[in-house]
Amino acid sequence: MADALRVALIGTGRIGRVHAATLARTDGVELAVVCDVDTARAEAVAAAYGGAVATDPGLVIGSADVDAVVIASPTATHVDLLGQAVEAGVPALCEKPIDLDIARVDALRERAAAATAPVMVGFNRRFDPHFAALRARVAAGEIGHLEHLAVTSRDPAPPPVAYVAVSGGIFRDMTIHDLDMARWFVPDIVSVTATGLRQFDDEIAGTGDYDAAVLTLVGAGGESVVITNSRHSAYGYDQRLEAFGSDGLLSVGNVTDTVVRFSGATASEVGEPFQNFFLERYAAAYERELAAFVSAVRGADVVVPGFEDGRAALVLADAALLSAREGRRVDVDLAR
Amino acid sequence: MADALRVALIGTGRIGRVHAATLARTDGVELAVVCDVDTARAEAVAAAYGGAVATDPGLVIGSADVDAVVIASPTATHVDLLGQAVEAGVPALCEKPIDLDIARVDALRERAAAATAPVMVGFNRRFDPHFAALRARVAAGEIGHLEHLAVTSRDPAPPPVAYVAVSGGIFRDMTIHDLDMARWFVPDIVSVTATGLRQFDDEIAGTGDYDAAVLTLVGAGGESVVITNSRHSAYGYDQRLEAFGSDGLLSVGNVTDTVVRFSGATASEVGEPFQNFFLERYAAAYERELAAFVSAVRGADVVVPGFEDGRAALVLADAALLSAREGRRVDVDLAR
Amino acid sequence: MADALRVALIGTGRIGRVHAATLARTDGVELAVVCDVDTARAEAVAAAYGGAVATDPGLVIGSADVDAVVIASPTATHVDLLGQAVEAGVPALCEKPIDLDIARVDALRERAAAATAPVMVGFNRRFDPHFAALRARVAAGEIGHLEHLAVTSRDPAPPPVAYVAVSGGIFRDMTIHDLDMARWFVPDIVSVTATGLRQFDDEIAGTGDYDAAVLTLVGAGGESVVITNSRHSAYGYDQRLEAFGSDGLLSVGNVTDTVVRFSGATASEVGEPFQNFFLERYAAAYERELAAFVSAVRGADVVVPGFEDGRAALVLADAALLSAREGRRVDVDLAR
Amino acid sequence: MADALRVALIGTGRIGRVHAATLARTDGVELAVVCDVDTARAEAVAAAYGGAVATDPGLVIGSADVDAVVIASPTATHVDLLGQAVEAGVPALCEKPIDLDIARVDALRERAAAATAPVMVGFNRRFDPHFAALRARVAAGEIGHLEHLAVTSRDPAPPPVAYVAVSGGIFRDMTIHDLDMARWFVPDIVSVTATGLRQFDDEIAGTGDYDAAVLTLVGAGGESVVITNSRHSAYGYDQRLEAFGSDGLLSVGNVTDTVVRFSGATASEVGEPFQNFFLERYAAAYERELAAFVSAVRGADVVVPGFEDGRAALVLADAALLSAREGRRVDVDLAR
Repeated sequence: MADALRVALIGTGRIGRVHAATLARTDGVELAVVCDVDTARAEAVAAAYGGAVATDPGLVIGSADVDAVVIASPTATHVDLLGQAVEAGVPALCEKPIDLDIARVDALRERAAAATAPVMVGFNRRFDPHFAALRARVAAGEIGHLEHLAVTSRDPAPPPVAYVAVSGGIFRDMTIHDLDMARWFVPDIVSVTATGLRQFDDEIAGTGDYDAAVLTLVGAGGESVVITNSRHSAYGYDQRLEAFGSDGLLSVGNVTDTVVRFSGATASEVGEPFQNFFLERYAAAYERELAAFVSAVRGADVVVPGFEDGRAALVLADAALLSAREGRRVDVDLAR
Repeated sequence: MADALRVALIGTGRIGRVHAATLARTDGVELAVVCDVDTARAEAVAAAYGGAVATDPGLVIGSADVDAVVIASPTATHVDLLGQAVEAGVPALCEKPIDLDIARVDALRERAAAATAPVMVGFNRRFDPHFAALRARVAAGEIGHLEHLAVTSRDPAPPPVAYVAVSGGIFRDMTIHDLDMARWFVPDIVSVTATGLRQFDDEIAGTGDYDAAVLTLVGAGGESVVITNSRHSAYGYDQRLEAFGSDGLLSVGNVTDTVVRFSGATASEVGEPFQNFFLERYAAAYERELAAFVSAVRGADVVVPGFEDGRAALVLADAALLSAREGRRVDVDLAR
Repeated sequence: MADALRVALIGTGRIGRVHAATLARTDGVELAVVCDVDTARAEAVAAAYGGAVATDPGLVIGSADVDAVVIASPTATHVDLLGQAVEAGVPALCEKPIDLDIARVDALRERAAAATAPVMVGFNRRFDPHFAALRARVAAGEIGHLEHLAVTSRDPAPPPVAYVAVSGGIFRDMTIHDLDMARWFVPDIVSVTATGLRQFDDEIAGTGDYDAAVLTLVGAGGESVVITNSRHSAYGYDQRLEAFGSDGLLSVGNVTDTVVRFSGATASEVGEPFQNFFLERYAAAYERELAAFVSAVRGADVVVPGFEDGRAALVLADAALLSAREGRRVDVDLAR
Repeated sequence: MADALRVALIGTGRIGRVHAATLARTDGVELAVVCDVDTARAEAVAAAYGGAVATDPGLVIGSADVDAVVIASPTATHVDLLGQAVEAGVPALCEKPIDLDIARVDALRERAAAATAPVMVGFNRRFDPHFAALRARVAAGEIGHLEHLAVTSRDPAPPPVAYVAVSGGIFRDMTIHDLDMARWFVPDIVSVTATGLRQFDDEIAGTGDYDAAVLTLVGAGGESVVITNSRHSAYGYDQRLEAFGSDGLLSVGNVTDTVVRFSGATASEVGEPFQNFFLERYAAAYERELAAFVSAVRGADVVVPGFEDGRAALVLADAALLSAREGRRVDVDLAR
C-alpha cells in the first residue's frame, strides 16, 4: 500500500532478525531499510524480508524515506541512536537496556521527556498474551488489592562468559526484564534488597558476577515483589508470574507447545518440555510489541513501556547490585 | 463399649481382609467373628484384627452374638448366605455380585424386598469421595440436566486365566461395577449396546471371553452412558468419570498419592504414577462403605446400594453379553 | 514473486473467508481469484485479501491463470466442482464432505483415483498441532500397540434447524470429522455401532435427526474407537482425543487462550473458558492444512487426507445412520 | 494390649485435641493421661478419647504410669515441661516453638543434648506425605544439586490481635515453621535477609508486628531459600514448596479434598477450594508425626526434628526480625 509505515531496522543480531521477520508480515508495515555495520548480515536479512541495505545508522535515522526505527544494535550504541531519533523526531522502538550506565541514560532523560515522537523500550514481556491477560485481570480488580508479586525467571543456560564479562552483570543484563515486570504491576518501587548467588558456574564467578539472584522489592503502597533468577534451568526457560491479592491469586505457569499429556507405568500426566527460550516463549509477545509500536506511531495515546520505564529498570538494577554487595536494603526514588 | 455393633466377617480373601482391617478401626464396631472354611486364614485375620474364629457361616449368621454380617466369601456362596441373613433378619453387607446367575438372584428377590433388616451390596465405588462429590454436585444441579455419563474403567492387569474362566465373563465380573456406576446416575436404563473386544490376551480369548469392551447405555430420559473397559492398563488402575449436562461438565480423573510434580529436560509437570489398583484407589471408599452399612444397621432410612441395585447390575451385564454376541441393541426393563 | 502459486478460492462463506485470509498471508501463494455466485460477497473478500472476482467456478477451474483451487462452496456443489478440477488436472483442496450422497461420490471415485493432480479433502483436524503431535507419538510407538481411541466432539450450540434439515443429519454433517479422526489412527474400520440420541432439542428431533450420538467403531486389528457427539456444550467447543495403547495413554484436552489460573475462596486453579468454536480452536490447523496443500501442489509425495479418506468417512457416516436406526452393528468394507 | 505405650497429653487446646484423637486411634498406643489446668477441658477430651484426667503436668511427667509425653500446652510452658521430661528421662514430643526466648532455650540446650530419652519438636510439616515425597526425591538426586528452595506459606486469616501481641511476632510464630522447612533441605543456613511488611491489617501493625514477610536465606553451600508469608489468604491455606536443582524442578502445590473438576461457560477445569487450614491440610502429617515419635520411643535411631532443630528455627526467626528491623543481612552460625 502507498501509505505503509516505512520502518528501518538497525541491528541484525538475534533479536534484530526476529523484528525483521515480524515487520515483514505485519499488515501496513514495510521493512524499508536493514542497517548493520556487518553488510553481509544486513544483506542476508534484506534478502529474506525485503528492504534496502545500509551501514550507517545515522543516515538511516535522518532519512526522509524512513517513518520509524527499531534499534536492535548492541547495547553500547542504544543511547546514542535513541538520542538521534529523539532529535530527528523519528519514532523509535529501542531494545533494552537503554544503556548500562545510568549517567548516560540520565543525560538523555530530559530530551526524551520532551520528545515529539513516540519512544518505546523493548520490554517484550509486557506484550506476552499470558502475562497481559493476568495483568488485565489484576487491573480489573479480580484479586482485590495487589499485595505481592512473584516473578520467576530462569534462563535455560548461561551466555558465554565473554558476554557475561561485558553484560553489566546479572542485574543489568537479565534481572532488568523482571524489574520491568515488577514495575508493570507496582510502578513506584521504593526499596530493593538483593542477594547475589554463585551456585553453579565458576567462570561467571571469576568475572565477579553472580549466576543466580533473589530480590525483594517494596512498593510505595507496601506491596512486595520477589524476583528469583538463575542463569540456568534444566527444564528450559522458566518464566512465571504470580499475583497475590486480598481476594485471590492469579498465576501464569510455563508454556508447552501442545496440550498433549502422557501417562505410563512410571509417571502420569506428563507434559511436553517447556518452551526452551525466549524466541519460542515470547514469539507472540514480539509480534504484539511491534503492533503496539506501530499503533503508537500512528497516534495511540499511550506509549508504554517508554523511556522512563527503561530508566527505572536500570536504576533498580543498580540498586540491586549495590544491595547485593553491601548486604543491605537500598532505598530508591524513581521519580527523582 | 458394651453396645458395640458385633459384626461377623464371612470370607477372608483379599477383600475380606480389607473389611477386617476397616472393622477393627471403626468406632463402635467390634469384629466379633471371623469365618472361613480355611481355618488357618481365619485365625490369621482374627489374630491381627480380633474376633472369634468360625468355619460354618450358617452358624455365624444365626448366632445371637452377631448383630450384622459382612459376606465376602466366594461369589458362588453369596446368594445362599444372603438368603440366610434375610431369613434370620440379620443386617448384611454382601460383596458384589450377588450371583452370576440371574435366576438364582431372582429366586431371592421377593424375600429380599420384604427383608426386615438392611441388605447392602458392596458396590464400593459409590462411596469413593471423588465420585460421591461429583454425584452430589450433579444432584445439586450444577451441570443442569444430566445428558451423558462417561465411565472409564481399566484394570492394571488381567486376573489369572483360570479365574477368568469361572468369572462369568468380563461383563459380569468387571463391568458390573461400571454398570452400577451408570445406574447411580441414571437408575432407569432401558437399553444396552455392547461391543466385546479381544485386543491383547489370547488366553482370555481362548476361554471365549473378551479382554476389553465398550458399552452404550440409554436411560429412560434419553440419557446416554458410555463405559470403556480393558483388562489391562500400563499406567495403573484407570478409574475416571465424566458427567456432561446442559450447563457444564464435571469430571474425576485418576488419583496419585501426592501432588508432587517434576519438570526436567524432556518432560514437564510429571505426576507420580496413578494409584495402581483398587486397594489403594478405593481405600477411603471401603471405609465409607462400612460406615454407611453401620449407619444402615443403626437405623438410617436409606440403604443403598441394595438388593435391587445388585440385581439390576447383573441384568445389565447379561444384556451386555447378549448384545455383544448378537451385535445388536438389547432393550431391558429393570422394574419388571 | 513471479512464481507464486496462483490459487482460486471458490466459495466465500465462513470457511471460505478463513481460507482467503490464510492464503493472503502464506508466503509463495497468491490469492488469484475469488469466486462466488454472490458477487458482493466475493468482492468484499477480494477487497480484503486480494484477487480477481469471478462468479462462474467452471471458468475459474479451467483458467490458465489458476494453478490450484480451494473448493469451499456449498456441499451440494463439491462433487461436481471437484470432478471438474480432476478433469482439468488442477490441484484441488475440497472442503468436507465431498457430498452427502455416497452414490455421487462413488461416481467420481475411479476418476479421482486416476487424477494427475493432487486432491485433498478438508479434514482440518488432522492438521491441528495438538492432535498431530499426539498421533506422531503414537506412530513412534510411545504407547506400544494402539488398542483404543476416544474421540470427544461437541459443538457449542446447534446450527439453525433449517440448516440441520438439509445437513444430511448429525452423522454426515458433524460426526464425519470424528470418523476421519478415527480413520487417521485406525484406517481400516470394519464395523460401526451407533446410538442416536435426542437429548435437548425438540426442533432437531422434529426433523428426524439426532442432537447427540455415541459410536463404537472396530478396526481390522481389533482396535476400538468411541466417538461421543453432542450438538451443544455449555463450556464451549469440546474437542478431545485419547489414545490408549499397550504401553500407556496419550491425551489431548481442550484448549484455552492463555495459561492464566485463578484461585479464590470458592474455587482453585480456575482456567479460562475453553476456546469456543472451530475458528479459534483450529486456527493453526487451517494454516497448516493450506501449507500441506501447497506442498502437495509443489510435489510432496503424500497427499492426505485424499479422496478415499473423504469417501470412507461418508461410508462410515452412512453406516452409523443405518446402525442407529436399526439398533444393530453394521459391518463395512472400506476397500470395496 | 499389655505393652501399649502409655502416652500422656499435656495441654488440650486445638492442637492438643488433634494429638488426642490421633493417639486414640494409633495401634499400640494408649492415651493414658489427659492433663490440663482447665479440668473441664481435660475431662471432655478424656471422655472422647480415653485416659485419666490430671491437672499438674509435673506429676504427670514423673509418673511411673507414663511412658512418654506430648507437650501441647501454651508456648510459655514448653521449655520448663520439656526440661522436666529431659530430667526424668521421659520421651517427649514438644510442640513448636520450644520457647520464644532463645536464652531460655539455650539454658536447656546442654541438658537436651545429653538427654537419654528421645526429644522431638513438633514441626509437623516434615511429616506431610507430599513434602516428604518431594524431599525424598531431592535426597535421591532426582534434581541433581539443590540450588534453590521456595517456601510459600500463607494462613487463611490472621489470629486475633490479642494473640498476635503475645505471639513473639510473625517470624517466631508463623515463619518458624517455614524456617524449619528451609533447614530440612538446607540445614546449615548462614545468613538471613528479611523484609517485614504491613499490607492489610492495621491492628497487627498497631502491635508493632508485620502481617506479611519475605525472607531470603543462604546456605553454607551457596543454596538460596525464599520464604513468602502472609497472615491472610483469600483462597485458603497456601502451603507450597518448590525445589530447584541442577537437573530439574520438583514442586508441591496446594491440596484439594477431591480431584473433581468443573468446566462451564465462564471457566474451565475449576478445582475445589484448597483445604482451608492446618487441621485439614496436615491431618496426615499429624498422624505420621506421632507415628514417628512412637517409633523413636521404641528405639528408632534417628529422632528428627529434635531439640537442635527447634533451637535453630528460633535463632533464624530472631535473625529475621533483626534483619527486617535494620534493613540488612544478618549472618548466623547455627552450630555455635
